[in-house]
Amino acid sequence: MGKVFLVGAGPGDPGLLTVKAHRILEQAEVVVYDRLVSAEVLALASQALLIDGGKRRGEQERIQDEINQLLVHHALAGRNVVRLKAGDPMVFARGAEEWEYLLGHGIEVELVPGVSSALAVPSLAGIPPTCRGIAASFAVIAGHRENFMRTDWSRYVPIDTLIILMGVENREYIAESLMRRGRSASQFVAFIENGTTARERVVETTVAAVAAGRVDVDPPAIFVIGDVVRLRSRLASIELAGEEFTGERFA
Amino acid sequence: MGKVFLVGAGPGDPGLLTVKAHRILEQAEVVVYDRLVSAEVLALASQALLIDGGKRRGEQERIQDEINQLLVHHALAGRNVVRLKAGDPMVFARGAEEWEYLLGHGIEVELVPGVSSALAVPSLAGIPPTCRGIAASFAVIAGHRENFMRTDWSRYVPIDTLIILMGVENREYIAESLMRRGRSASQFVAFIENGTTARERVVETTVAAVAAGRVDVDPPAIFVIGDVVRLRSRLASIELAGEEFTGERFA
Repeated sequence: MGKVFLVGAGPGDPGLLTVKAHRILEQAEVVVYDRLVSAEVLALASQALLIDGGKRRGEQERIQDEINQLLVHHALAGRNVVRLKAGDPMVFARGAEEWEYLLGHGIEVELVPGVSSALAVPSLAGIPPTCRGIAASFAVIAGHRENFMRTDWSRYVPIDTLIILMGVENREYIAESLMRRGRSASQFVAFIENGTTARERVVETTVAAVAAGRVDVDPPAIFVIGDVVRLRSRLASIELAGEEFTGERFA
Repeated sequence: MGKVFLVGAGPGDPGLLTVKAHRILEQAEVVVYDRLVSAEVLALASQALLIDGGKRRGEQERIQDEINQLLVHHALAGRNVVRLKAGDPMVFARGAEEWEYLLGHGIEVELVPGVSSALAVPSLAGIPPTCRGIAASFAVIAGHRENFMRTDWSRYVPIDTLIILMGVENREYIAESLMRRGRSASQFVAFIENGTTARERVVETTVAAVAAGRVDVDPPAIFVIGDVVRLRSRLASIELAGEEFTGERFA
């Protein structure tokens, strides 16, 4: 019987794949990949049957069922199957659900963690999640509708650094909720669009400006709130050398 | 002039190094490594001058100054220098401070993010940081004395999954503080000692038992609090096949 490798593809740059993920992709027979996996990473598995497992709104449940069944089907047929997810498979990616489903069908699963985009994308943009004297904790939060409608956002107010995934569409609501419950209106915010790719764009602003609907940003982007955002100007100062306001990637 | 690569070594398994980190280590001339970097990872840089940058209590500041000066010295001498940190360099590792110091001395820095032990070690033990319906947020927190003495731990009570690094020694205080401020006494806790190595040991318990001083665990260990800890028995059930209570690693 085949086996399913539950693999993190990292933030996009194939150099940020793990050594193990790289080897497994080159040997894969079937790869079921998520929407945010980069073309450069997929190219490593050019010999495999590539199946697009991307989900669009409103069809998540149907597609998830199909993915589960596909993974079981190909594993039972004796193939080495890779379930490939952007970033890390255990961070908001239904990785645990798929793992449990596969085990329930008697299929061996091997988890290969990836570099989480939630941490690496801000870091590469000069915004570390933690820094001594500035941030001794960070939280990573799902910002999509299903979470924010049932979540009391006051719970996140006291955490030093907030890293919000899938929160671009709801950015005004999120910033306004945090501000109303005590987060500083003048605190720095960054959105990093298309992190670690050639199209990366960083927008620096404040909680108040986001809440007021004055910040244009397109998904996918990582939404970071915290004093660590201010480090960007210090960590970027020399490398950027004049292009500090273009929003281009420097590292 | 040389350059300093600020590199994450991941949780220990050399297969969990990034492709880029692997290549950089093989070509390094000088490697200054932290205490928790595994011997297997260091072995990849056997041609380099290896410098132990591990800090013991009470000498952190002196050693940090020495490390900063060493990095500058070797880079100015034209060598390719790797500053190697366990996990990811931007998560509680003074990576941002070293980055800023080096830029201030005119030295080029390239950040190579790593797989964070904070996420990968629990995940590989069957404890994902997030899971739909169970945890829509997680926080990563420094549990050492300098942080907990000045921190109001009530801030962390409402976050679904708490992942505490450097918190083994202060585990009773941490658990007791969280419980007193409203975290459920019966909530599940796991400590993962020596994660992803052959000596890995997982201790499953509850917040109340930790607060009562009834849990033996040795550093380094990752301390996880949350309902996701209960997933371990489901994700581990088949692979462990009878050794569920030995605490041995299953994945």
